Amino acid sequence: MRRLLVIGIGMGEPEGLTARAADALGRANTFFLLDKSEAAGELVSARQALIARFGRPGHRVVRAPSPPRRPAPLAGARKAYEGAVVDWHGARAALLAGLIARELGEDETGAMLVWGDPMLYDSTLRVLAAARAGADFIVEVFPGVTALQALCAAHAVPLNGIGEEVRLTTGRHVAQATPDAPAFAVLLDDGSGLEALLARGFEGTLWWGANLGTEAEILVAGRLCEVGAAALAARAQVKAARGWVMDVWLARRASPEAISAP
Amino acid sequence: MRRLLVIGIGMGEPEGLTARAADALGRANTFFLLDKSEAAGELVSARQALIARFGRPGHRVVRAPSPPRRPAPLAGARKAYEGAVVDWHGARAALLAGLIARELGEDETGAMLVWGDPMLYDSTLRVLAAARAGADFIVEVFPGVTALQALCAAHAVPLNGIGEEVRLTTGRHVAQATPDAPAFAVLLDDGSGLEALLARGFEGTLWWGANLGTEAEILVAGRLCEVGAAALAARAQVKAARGWVMDVWLARRASPEAISAP
Repeated sequence: MRRLLVIGIGMGEPEGLTARAADALGRANTFFLLDKSEAAGELVSARQALIARFGRPGHRVVRAPSPPRRPAPLAGARKAYEGAVVDWHGARAALLAGLIARELGEDETGAMLVWGDPMLYDSTLRVLAAARAGADFIVEVFPGVTALQALCAAHAVPLNGIGEEVRLTTGRHVAQATPDAPAFAVLLDDGSGLEALLARGFEGTLWWGANLGTEAEILVAGRLCEVGAAALAARAQVKAARGWVMDVWLARRASPEAISAP
Repeated sequence: MRRLLVIGIGMGEPEGLTARAADALGRANTFFLLDKSEAAGELVSARQALIARFGRPGHRVVRAPSPPRRPAPLAGARKAYEGAVVDWHGARAALLAGLIARELGEDETGAMLVWGDPMLYDSTLRVLAAARAGADFIVEVFPGVTALQALCAAHAVPLNGIGEEVRLTTGRHVAQATPDAPAFAVLLDDGSGLEALLARGFEGTLWWGANLGTEAEILVAGRLCEVGAAALAARAQVKAARGWVMDVWLARRASPEAISAP
């Protein structure tokens, strides 16, 4: 039976991998890399370095350009956004099913490397579930450290208050409305979520970080209304300098009691 | 300057540690283990095995009984529950401040091992922040794989739908009310949260797991109304046999559109 390993690589640094994930990298006959057009060279080379370090002798690397994605529609058009993503996933699934059928022998093992953890804001598991309509294989998943964990570690701050619910959300959601939660973590923000919160005069604390767990880590923390602009500036600066930025942030209301958790 | 490393050890298996966490175990002069009275021997010995394997020669282990915790008040009495936890944290903070001042030399490094990741439903970072009132030290945090990540990996299921908010909550919250979210993950459930959801006739899918990422892993998945009782039975059985159980679950509504995400 063909097997596909989905391996969480955290921030892409060898030291951040679990021993199980490193071991899984050594089991693969073939690595599948779908390159997004916007992927900067650094992101590609970090994955290649991991494969070179942990891959077994004679492994193959199959690279294919990821299908193009329709431009995201305007904020607010949630259905249209989802539709565009679903179409894109369908195209990726068809591509992957073809690659797996063609490039992977009957009893061989393939692998895909996923930033962070495959469970959180990543499409690989959904795409592979769809790809199984066109190819027969087993999926095995290896957790990786998410940017959110790296953020909390860097600031030495817990995600949740005592017994409190945790809200993880996206920049798109926050741009539309401030979450009705005592605290919330925001991923996939292009800056507009944090900007919106600043503009609304949100009263609370911000813990922000970019390129977490790497040499280039940048941290900002303090009252959101006082340090939010500095975080946005740092974000813009990193993006301009490197071509990409991975950032994540956590906000906590000044008076969590204003929100009644269930 | 004294330094205290807070190290996420995931499910306690050496293979689940990141290389950074393993390395951190090797930096500590002294390990502080606060044993809860309910901790079964297996939990203590898993931590000791990690220390024996990764600890540096000549390291010390300081064990102390964790201060007793007042019995949790009835469900619903959220303020009373928080109050009891805050008191307990205060007692732990005073104990730790004393231990660190007494047992750690001026430039030495101590370490505490935390199940899962210190950021998620764990009190260590809060307790250490309070302990710094009574002792001077720097805190460094190392992420670990949470049970939630192990659950999603074992079932090869993503935590969130496309662009969807993620709700992490506790058994106490779910016992009181079903979260108004398309999907939610539940930690710290003594079984009453899942029981309540079953009793309410929740329509949707359950992914449940216990002792995840270990040899004794048990998984249950399917329609919650069909498999929920089996998960509860497995939970009771493991707890009876081993004296403890660590379980976590994810539920997804049959029709997520019934809930309008922001």
